[in-house]
Amino acid sequence: MLVVQKYGGTSVGNLERIENVANRVIKSKKTYKDIVVVVSAMSGRTNQLIENANFYSEFPNKKELDMLLSCGERETAALLAISLISKGYNAISLSGKEAGLLTTDDYTNAKIIDIDSTRIKKELSEGKIVVVAGFQGYAANGNTTTLGRGGSDLSAVAFAGALNADLCEIYTDVDGVYTTDPRIEPKAKKLDKVSYEEMLELASLGAKVLQNRSVELAKKLNVKLVTRSSFNDNSGTIITSEEKMEQALVSGIALDKNQARIVLRRIEDKPGIAASIFTTLAKKDINVDMIIQNVGHDGTTNLGFTVPQNELKNASEAMRELLGSDVVIESDSDIVKVSVVGVGMKTHSGVASAAFEALANEGINIQMISTSEIKISMIVSSKYAELAVRTLHKVYKLDN
Amino acid sequence: MLVVQKYGGTSVGNLERIENVANRVIKSKKTYKDIVVVVSAMSGRTNQLIENANFYSEFPNKKELDMLLSCGERETAALLAISLISKGYNAISLSGKEAGLLTTDDYTNAKIIDIDSTRIKKELSEGKIVVVAGFQGYAANGNTTTLGRGGSDLSAVAFAGALNADLCEIYTDVDGVYTTDPRIEPKAKKLDKVSYEEMLELASLGAKVLQNRSVELAKKLNVKLVTRSSFNDNSGTIITSEEKMEQALVSGIALDKNQARIVLRRIEDKPGIAASIFTTLAKKDINVDMIIQNVGHDGTTNLGFTVPQNELKNASEAMRELLGSDVVIESDSDIVKVSVVGVGMKTHSGVASAAFEALANEGINIQMISTSEIKISMIVSSKYAELAVRTLHKVYKLDN
Repeated sequence: MLVVQKYGGTSVGNLERIENVANRVIKSKKTYKDIVVVVSAMSGRTNQLIENANFYSEFPNKKELDMLLSCGERETAALLAISLISKGYNAISLSGKEAGLLTTDDYTNAKIIDIDSTRIKKELSEGKIVVVAGFQGYAANGNTTTLGRGGSDLSAVAFAGALNADLCEIYTDVDGVYTTDPRIEPKAKKLDKVSYEEMLELASLGAKVLQNRSVELAKKLNVKLVTRSSFNDNSGTIITSEEKMEQALVSGIALDKNQARIVLRRIEDKPGIAASIFTTLAKKDINVDMIIQNVGHDGTTNLGFTVPQNELKNASEAMRELLGSDVVIESDSDIVKVSVVGVGMKTHSGVASAAFEALANEGINIQMISTSEIKISMIVSSKYAELAVRTLHKVYKLDN
Repeated sequence: MLVVQKYGGTSVGNLERIENVANRVIKSKKTYKDIVVVVSAMSGRTNQLIENANFYSEFPNKKELDMLLSCGERETAALLAISLISKGYNAISLSGKEAGLLTTDDYTNAKIIDIDSTRIKKELSEGKIVVVAGFQGYAANGNTTTLGRGGSDLSAVAFAGALNADLCEIYTDVDGVYTTDPRIEPKAKKLDKVSYEEMLELASLGAKVLQNRSVELAKKLNVKLVTRSSFNDNSGTIITSEEKMEQALVSGIALDKNQARIVLRRIEDKPGIAASIFTTLAKKDINVDMIIQNVGHDGTTNLGFTVPQNELKNASEAMRELLGSDVVIESDSDIVKVSVVGVGMKTHSGVASAAFEALANEGINIQMISTSEIKISMIVSSKYAELAVRTLHKVYKLDN
């Protein structure tokens, strides 16, 4: 058995915690034959390094920033290896480059191209626990690169894929994926299993356990993920492909408080108008989430969409510029997006209507609705955020 | 013109000082066409990293320690490059490995095998200021190594040699090499030039400007060294080959307070006795400095030598074990070594006798004497240390 374990910033937050990780790894070594451990920088370290760089420039050179930032994970990797060796285990730390993680040269946000796992395999074959600095790789020109936010998770998944690992365990400070945020609904339950697809939709659940980029890669490489806590022995949540799971109707309720809504009223209902609107927004790097367009009448139509709150002003201005003064542009940042997620809803009818009815019973007006095969998203006034989550959590019997 | 500049830990001790170094480098860029900057870790950083490693083990795994320690210099290199780039200069940082510094795999104390300067030359040819992380290289197996104490100086000298640099400037927090320690003799003068040989003998002068390992390498590679301060614009001290210099009679007075003396009385005067004594000490890694043996009589002789103070007990015990109880073993740690250094004394007589006479006039008893072509070393009671230095400094007119 080969397992890749990834320990995040809080799990390696200080010297004692790194030692705690060493003990966990040693315990796992007794269960699994081969272990590759991917580590993040100690929590706070990356921000500290960025702050140092910002002393010289608000926008430090990205190639050099990667040289700087990569030190954080190298340090943790070396310290964990030192701890393991001091406890009598054969271990070695490798930088991302030494571990063969080749990326594009998009410094600070590089994409993984390939992994040459020769070195890792060699060290494993010598019985060593291999500790790899996460978040980093190297470009074809030899320079160090980093993978951007959530990069260590991504490293772990990529190594698990390249090594054909039996399991990729992502250790954080939470127990796994919950049916909804336990701070909003104390009855929220930890899920034992979710599919990749559900996980992608649930990304905003609870403590943002995993970024979508890593889940997408795991799905692509068919890596079986487990997300669990490094602070206890709870079993965590398995994230795997749909076929391997008994399908729950609804897996969880997600809440996104970072959305704002724009509605364009009485825009000309002609071919290409939507394209021109969303091309304009894309050019400004504004990330559009939900898009709702109703059938129009009188030659005009209404179009609604959501954007991140901090892009609302930009987006409104861009629309005013594009559409002129005839169009009514309404914007509202006082809204939230509540989503019901579950692979089971594909084959069940009535899932959506149950949501609408339950919210109506609580007097919650649904401003926008968007559905996909495994998700129903609804925009409601932000004052109803928690009530909507709890109502939906109950209606789909996630409390039990 | 190609210059290699090395900035030590105090010179890059904090973010402001790194920026100060950037400004110095930019100023130099106007004088020299090509600049390679070798940097140390920020002062205190290396010790902090070692402390972290010691949390897990008193003797952390050396391969892993090198992985850890190498981060210190990488950080400085990246920050300096960021600063240079933010000021509008084209710069790039390279790790020791990226810069092509190949070493043995003696982790924490690796020896330089070779430098492949292809990458540095490529970057220089593109007009870049090349910033190299000092103190580190890589072994043939690809692992990161470090060069031990004074390793950044050594890196700088090695790169200067490999690149056939016109000059290698070593920046520290002192102005250069002095005729003696200014804390002992305020009239001590900064030397404009010294030879490699003198520098080797003067290593203990003043603030230990340069370690012998670096001077020896500079001599071997014929690298012209300049040691100067990064905190002012004083011209520093040039260290070069003897032939290029007007020979001063005496260049300086060195004081070594770290010696202890052992005298073996009435040892059997037979062939091989000295060999057995010093082989015994060498096997215990005890570094013997001065050795004095007088002609014996009655079939016995006296033999004196000095060792570092912290080895005195070890050395005495080893001697007792080797020689049995018949031999009288005297040990004294209450002594210092005062040395007169100068290439000029090769061709002048009377240099030694002037020293002996001057010390005698001050009532200072000389316990041991050892001479080489360019040095006279004398062991005196430690209470006379400063008086001896000042007396000799005056007798050779170094005050002027």
